[in-house]
Amino acid sequence: MNEKEIIKRFFMRGSNDPSVVVGIGDDAAVVTNNKQCQLVTTTDTMVEGKHFSKQAPAYGVGYKLMASNLSDIAAMGAVPRWATLNLTLARVDEVWLQEFSNGLLECASKHNVTLIGGDTTSGNQLNVSVHLSGEVPNNMAMLRSHAQVNDKIFVTGVIGLAASMLSHLQKQNYSHANLTESQLSALYKPSSRVDLAIELREIAHAAIDISDGLLHELDIVCEASHVGASLQLNSIPVDRDINLQQAITGGEDYELLFTAGHEHIDQIAQLSEKHSCRISEIGEITNTHLIELYQGEQLVPTPKYTGYDHFPKS
Amino acid sequence: MNEKEIIKRFFMRGSNDPSVVVGIGDDAAVVTNNKQCQLVTTTDTMVEGKHFSKQAPAYGVGYKLMASNLSDIAAMGAVPRWATLNLTLARVDEVWLQEFSNGLLECASKHNVTLIGGDTTSGNQLNVSVHLSGEVPNNMAMLRSHAQVNDKIFVTGVIGLAASMLSHLQKQNYSHANLTESQLSALYKPSSRVDLAIELREIAHAAIDISDGLLHELDIVCEASHVGASLQLNSIPVDRDINLQQAITGGEDYELLFTAGHEHIDQIAQLSEKHSCRISEIGEITNTHLIELYQGEQLVPTPKYTGYDHFPKS
Repeated sequence: MNEKEIIKRFFMRGSNDPSVVVGIGDDAAVVTNNKQCQLVTTTDTMVEGKHFSKQAPAYGVGYKLMASNLSDIAAMGAVPRWATLNLTLARVDEVWLQEFSNGLLECASKHNVTLIGGDTTSGNQLNVSVHLSGEVPNNMAMLRSHAQVNDKIFVTGVIGLAASMLSHLQKQNYSHANLTESQLSALYKPSSRVDLAIELREIAHAAIDISDGLLHELDIVCEASHVGASLQLNSIPVDRDINLQQAITGGEDYELLFTAGHEHIDQIAQLSEKHSCRISEIGEITNTHLIELYQGEQLVPTPKYTGYDHFPKS
Repeated sequence: MNEKEIIKRFFMRGSNDPSVVVGIGDDAAVVTNNKQCQLVTTTDTMVEGKHFSKQAPAYGVGYKLMASNLSDIAAMGAVPRWATLNLTLARVDEVWLQEFSNGLLECASKHNVTLIGGDTTSGNQLNVSVHLSGEVPNNMAMLRSHAQVNDKIFVTGVIGLAASMLSHLQKQNYSHANLTESQLSALYKPSSRVDLAIELREIAHAAIDISDGLLHELDIVCEASHVGASLQLNSIPVDRDINLQQAITGGEDYELLFTAGHEHIDQIAQLSEKHSCRISEIGEITNTHLIELYQGEQLVPTPKYTGYDHFPKS
């Protein structure tokens, strides 16, 4: 099976997206974009043995690859539109490809994203990237640098389950056999807060995807906005079986952290209900340039945290 | 050196591109696109040991990666604008990264392309992808499917040198030591016919990048356009030391093949001169659904050709 056959068999599905003038199959794709919008683009790579194990379900790898890109587009408040796929295969495994493309395209189609192109090649190690473009009305993107002193800090969903599952899998030598459906979903089918974020962009100041860990991502927002933050640990929405410290320092949650003025609290509660998405107020932006953690009234030490480091010193 | 430091040190260079609202460093990039245009996107992956050898100059690998994407954008007649980079590194080799980024960004800057984002990660095998977006006025893209019976067939540049160098390198176990500057350039610094193509889109019907080999790419145009072609081998612009058969079946030439009505021949000659780019008329589109090769008056057998197959049957 050559490159063209792989694309045709697994990745070309009829599309009725009227914006796509030329899809897969020419030198490049051509799409008609919305004239009132700016273009928003992101890309994520996943490598076998690094971002997922050889035992990971191919459907989940495909789904998560698309979802991680969607999460970045959501963090900008943009509407996701067009994706391309770079696929480096160590072998042509038709079962794997079928499952992978099912996951990838199911996640895409759920959010009205059309796959318009890509590049398929071979290598020693499975390596997959998606590039996703979206659209946001002019000057409406939510940026990391827009947090303001006295903003309330919010986080979507419940965090920590994915990081906890991952550390569990590492201990079990990546055997997925004992995981429940919901545990598998936490790892491989993260929610993408796209529809919620499109409404949030009207009221939120800053937003960020917390896939590298809540504390780390909050730090990035504070640094970019030249502000500090105080967090109320008791308000952080953590699954009851999950260690709080692991939840706020671990990653893999494709949830959003955002900041907004306190006058929007009611509106945010309505959006939470409308989108069936828990939204928790977890703290406040301060002018301290520090991140301070409180447990009730008590200031507690900040645990060590860093984003995931792909290149640790050996 | 972590991901953030790699990006900052090697890939963030001051940009004065007014279209870039948010560049590297947020969840996604935001750009303001031209309202009279459609968006054109392409992506290419290069894998060490597959698309280039370990001995290949890093500068050349970076340059060629950007150039191969530019060539696809050129084949549509579009103006290249914004790129993202997916980088999977087997190790953090600062000398390699400096040279690679120099090549990539020099090629980008030559064509006014701005690097607006990407993803950097680690893996066992060096794997690099660029995604490039461009713009073309509404409905002006040159498509593979638009060739018309009686169109003349043209090709830019002189072909065959890159494929010949590659087969030479394979025989020498990839020692680059004996290659001249111009031989290295043929392999790693292909011309991108961007400026020429922007003017060609006004007159050309179909266009395609011939990086997978002239005969193979012509075949694709004929199939997409439901036409045939007759080629005059004596007119094919091949370097004098190069084997004609290798030149028309080999790949690696980032030149354009295009078709246009015979009434545009003078205009094409003017464009050739204006852009200092040889343009050769090499044949004609026919209604035969076959590709026929002539040497003078004589019909000659068509050599076997296929595009590069990444997944050959073992």
